[in-house]
Amino acid sequence: MSKELLQKQANTIRFLAADMVQQANSGHPGAPMGLADIATVLSKHLNISPSNDKWLNRDRLVFSGGHATGLVYSLLHLWGFDVSLSDIKNFRQHNSKTPGHPEYGHTHGIEITTGPLGQGIANAVGFSMASKYAQNILGKDVINHKVYCLCGDGDLQEGISYEACATAGHLNLDNLVVIYDSNSITIEGDTSISWSENVKKRFDAINFDVIEIDGHNFTQIDNAITKAKEATKPVLIIAKTAIGKGAATLEGSHHTHGAPLGEDEIRASKEKAGFNPDEKFVVPYDIKGAFDKLIKGVEAENAWNESLSEETKAKIEELKNPNFDSIEYPQFEEGSSVATRGSNHKILNAIAKAIPGFLGGSADLAPSNKTELLDMGDFPTGRNIHFGIKEHAMASICNAMNLYGLFRVYSATFFVFSDYLKPAARIAALASIPQHFIWTHDSIGVGEDGPTHQPIEHLSQFRALPNFYVFRPADANENIDCWKTALKLNAPSAFVCSRQNLEVLKSKKEFGDVSNGGYLLKKREGATVTIMASGSEVMLALKTACALEKDGILANIVSVPCFDLLLEQDKEYISNIIDKNTKVFAVEAARGLEYYKYADVVYGMDTFGASAPANKLFEDFGFTIDSLTQKIKKDL
Amino acid sequence: MSKELLQKQANTIRFLAADMVQQANSGHPGAPMGLADIATVLSKHLNISPSNDKWLNRDRLVFSGGHATGLVYSLLHLWGFDVSLSDIKNFRQHNSKTPGHPEYGHTHGIEITTGPLGQGIANAVGFSMASKYAQNILGKDVINHKVYCLCGDGDLQEGISYEACATAGHLNLDNLVVIYDSNSITIEGDTSISWSENVKKRFDAINFDVIEIDGHNFTQIDNAITKAKEATKPVLIIAKTAIGKGAATLEGSHHTHGAPLGEDEIRASKEKAGFNPDEKFVVPYDIKGAFDKLIKGVEAENAWNESLSEETKAKIEELKNPNFDSIEYPQFEEGSSVATRGSNHKILNAIAKAIPGFLGGSADLAPSNKTELLDMGDFPTGRNIHFGIKEHAMASICNAMNLYGLFRVYSATFFVFSDYLKPAARIAALASIPQHFIWTHDSIGVGEDGPTHQPIEHLSQFRALPNFYVFRPADANENIDCWKTALKLNAPSAFVCSRQNLEVLKSKKEFGDVSNGGYLLKKREGATVTIMASGSEVMLALKTACALEKDGILANIVSVPCFDLLLEQDKEYISNIIDKNTKVFAVEAARGLEYYKYADVVYGMDTFGASAPANKLFEDFGFTIDSLTQKIKKDL
Repeated sequence: MSKELLQKQANTIRFLAADMVQQANSGHPGAPMGLADIATVLSKHLNISPSNDKWLNRDRLVFSGGHATGLVYSLLHLWGFDVSLSDIKNFRQHNSKTPGHPEYGHTHGIEITTGPLGQGIANAVGFSMASKYAQNILGKDVINHKVYCLCGDGDLQEGISYEACATAGHLNLDNLVVIYDSNSITIEGDTSISWSENVKKRFDAINFDVIEIDGHNFTQIDNAITKAKEATKPVLIIAKTAIGKGAATLEGSHHTHGAPLGEDEIRASKEKAGFNPDEKFVVPYDIKGAFDKLIKGVEAENAWNESLSEETKAKIEELKNPNFDSIEYPQFEEGSSVATRGSNHKILNAIAKAIPGFLGGSADLAPSNKTELLDMGDFPTGRNIHFGIKEHAMASICNAMNLYGLFRVYSATFFVFSDYLKPAARIAALASIPQHFIWTHDSIGVGEDGPTHQPIEHLSQFRALPNFYVFRPADANENIDCWKTALKLNAPSAFVCSRQNLEVLKSKKEFGDVSNGGYLLKKREGATVTIMASGSEVMLALKTACALEKDGILANIVSVPCFDLLLEQDKEYISNIIDKNTKVFAVEAARGLEYYKYADVVYGMDTFGASAPANKLFEDFGFTIDSLTQKIKKDL
Repeated sequence: MSKELLQKQANTIRFLAADMVQQANSGHPGAPMGLADIATVLSKHLNISPSNDKWLNRDRLVFSGGHATGLVYSLLHLWGFDVSLSDIKNFRQHNSKTPGHPEYGHTHGIEITTGPLGQGIANAVGFSMASKYAQNILGKDVINHKVYCLCGDGDLQEGISYEACATAGHLNLDNLVVIYDSNSITIEGDTSISWSENVKKRFDAINFDVIEIDGHNFTQIDNAITKAKEATKPVLIIAKTAIGKGAATLEGSHHTHGAPLGEDEIRASKEKAGFNPDEKFVVPYDIKGAFDKLIKGVEAENAWNESLSEETKAKIEELKNPNFDSIEYPQFEEGSSVATRGSNHKILNAIAKAIPGFLGGSADLAPSNKTELLDMGDFPTGRNIHFGIKEHAMASICNAMNLYGLFRVYSATFFVFSDYLKPAARIAALASIPQHFIWTHDSIGVGEDGPTHQPIEHLSQFRALPNFYVFRPADANENIDCWKTALKLNAPSAFVCSRQNLEVLKSKKEFGDVSNGGYLLKKREGATVTIMASGSEVMLALKTACALEKDGILANIVSVPCFDLLLEQDKEYISNIIDKNTKVFAVEAARGLEYYKYADVVYGMDTFGASAPANKLFEDFGFTIDSLTQKIKKDL
């Protein structure tokens, strides 16, 4: 590699990024310019096939600092992905392929949506974990790629980066290479105003190999990546860089972080580097060619394809296309009693039996969440992942594992601790990642553990999140139907399950079913009341209806296992399950305000719970047949 | 200290905890029994005054592993706080003083609500930070207490613990002593199944002194705490312990973590320790006396009170009782244009000028959040706290700083990143902590940064959280009224502010005002339409009303700066602002489902946003005068 050529390649990236931000009049030039030298050298090492961004054995590259899109799109263009110069000129514009932060499924070559800091590091750990499991199934001859992650100071300050990297070190993910763009600049100024740790020592402590380099020295970069590829541990390369490297007067300044450099600065910078200051968005022909030469491309992919045995190909196909119709679901007898966390446990095991790529685990609550896959061993040789008490990293890791191309992965914790992983759940929704979130202990039914452990706002919180499907089954059989629906969604789903036993209902569906989100469970001709409910409150609603009937008040019951799907139904469907001539009540041991879309009156929770036996709490907060009967009669 | 006596003291704690859990038939005996020896020795070092749990210069003790309530209540009782043996017998029962996890404001002597893991460590860092600022104002002769934190494996696995401790190391909080109960047991089994870091090295890397001891050796415990008190850095004491220490057969087993030991095991354990197996909830007289002797108590408090100068007393009183009526708020001219993040900046500075204990900062977004207090210097000598990119620790730290007794503390980040700190916001709500959360960049108005940075579900999410007040001001003047209301709430509040400029409205209030959460901003006799809106959509609603009026449709406008307060209004108030004879529309560039409580039709967002200039997005998602006028006419 000629130093001059590399320099010109890096400068091409720099000025593309600077021009993009200038033209959009918004964006982040600093990080792309600081990372340009590293990215140029990394191009040589990457084993990717730009014509097929789904090649299974490609190296994964995660841009954890998602704001560096000036770099991301420049690279995708230069490497040969489907990002043109005209896309690049359209940076951050309406309907462009080049939005402000990288979006999975939107732009060719983007492995995962990033932007919220720290997520990308955990995603990289997730890709690496997926590759380890793939290796165990398919062999090291088949799966032997690397996972690279570019991250910055902000990523490492976020707690999730600690959780994820501690996990990587614990699992000794030796194909993971994290390159840390250490420019010591954040938005408020020098990192030293808020951060002064010894990063090397921190990563030593969690079983990483740490390599320290000058991030603008091509030889050092090349040697470091070469060494990292041969490492027997996960690697952190600490690359000392200058933010905005190559900017005529602003190099090293936090003013290059999140605002255009200005026309004059860009002109001066181009002149300094020997580029024509009058030209914008320039990719010299020899530079495109130089990148083309570095990229392994379709030859590597073809060679890999040819190396696969028929057996391996079949295994890969089976993993890629799970046959959810082959699942033999458990049976639950009407009138028996089982917590939905319990029925869910049986269902998880049934799915795992049929689907070889189905795996997952809990953030140290497997015995409580009931998520253990029986007789399936522990990850990475088996399918039970022990995430430790690291909910946030768990969910981000599972996002990436689900995008790896072979697996369907679930995570689990108490419903109230879904708070800890909200940022990752949001990315799952935004990127349509079909992670299954198992969230047990779903209401004041938690009982004695008290209000710190009792979800109140969480159903509303996740129902408000677009493209995220929250299932709260009323009983074991509805639980099965929820899974049947969720497995076929191209989006994340949550299973909100009870700690306490729930009676298995007579599974009559008067109109609609679980796939509609809500359905008419019980219909009475001449009803004056409709009661909507979900989860443990459905049986309560049924019993309340019986009590009302004794007083001559007839009630229809609508079970709402998935409010999000209900919202997608048309007016006709709604009018079929909610009789306009009835007064509509909703009952949920949660905040429940969203029910007002359909209900006249909502009986929910507008305070936190308390510490006491669960039955006492249901009584206290009015979730009893007596209390509801009285309230409905009063409010009718 | 006699070893025998100490042993008996520790065993008293052990068996109280075991009896509590057994009687409640739920709870966690393992951690209390493992920590009993440490807690006994710590009693000698603590400078507290149990008759006054608000004594300013008391040592703070945070139980980060909140599940160890068997220990917490035993200690509070033995130390002389207002927790009786009969309270202890009522553990985890309805309306008892002794709920499943420690609750601030509920039980005498509890410094802060804990349970969700990792929070307590960040709280301890917050107490320590508050003490450092107090020291700077009042002097080291006045404020010189320690902050102790008991934590476990789970706390250290959580990312927030890394964020908080890195902050403690950065600020060199030399009065902070974290005692790590290293029992190597979590719910799924031995910690080694998911965690294998070198904890000592990890804390070395962030500027802690680390001391390693046997957590059941009284001399080692005593020496370690003594040494920690003299340290010039924050200290981590790694105490190797056995979970369930003293249990006859289950010592060291994860079965002691979260379930009663069983009557037989408890009897055998008591016998082994020389306690009468037939007796429960026993505090031998000499043991109560032994604890009484260890506690510094009211004498220490009195001596401290007497040492204070009149000037110091006056300063303390001023800090304790901020006079919010003395604030001289800025003025904003009708028709001028300013982003609410901008007006908020002026208001923050006005408050800080009047209130000496008002301080805060951002998670590295101060220039964007506009939260800098001008000419007030940087923490700890000044009032601008640079939290770094650690939203979660920031919010938990501010929870504790607000409970310190002298300060009103705000935190700040982008609204979309409120996700990162949700667990801490929930504790603020549960414990009624008046932290002010400044959340700017409040909608698709964020523009080019795209959907990763555009909040959609967040208003709904935090409105669903009980006892948490979300303010979204429509303009600069409403912003002032929001602050006037929020400052007097005994609960957390959020200020959800725009990135983009908003016109300053003609501040006419036809009925009600900001303190009611929603008010009638514009009234038209004979109106057939009511439009409810918040924030940037209020001006849009006003303009839409003008457009409708041209077509002969008269509309009332209801501004909803705080939906949570609106929910607290009675029917009469609601009927005064929402005319029953009008069709009610709600407009919000957010999910907005909760508006159905009042509105017939909601125009909100049911997808994520996109990356494009803000105006283009408002157009695309239908938030324009034209689009709304047409929709209202169609839906009327």
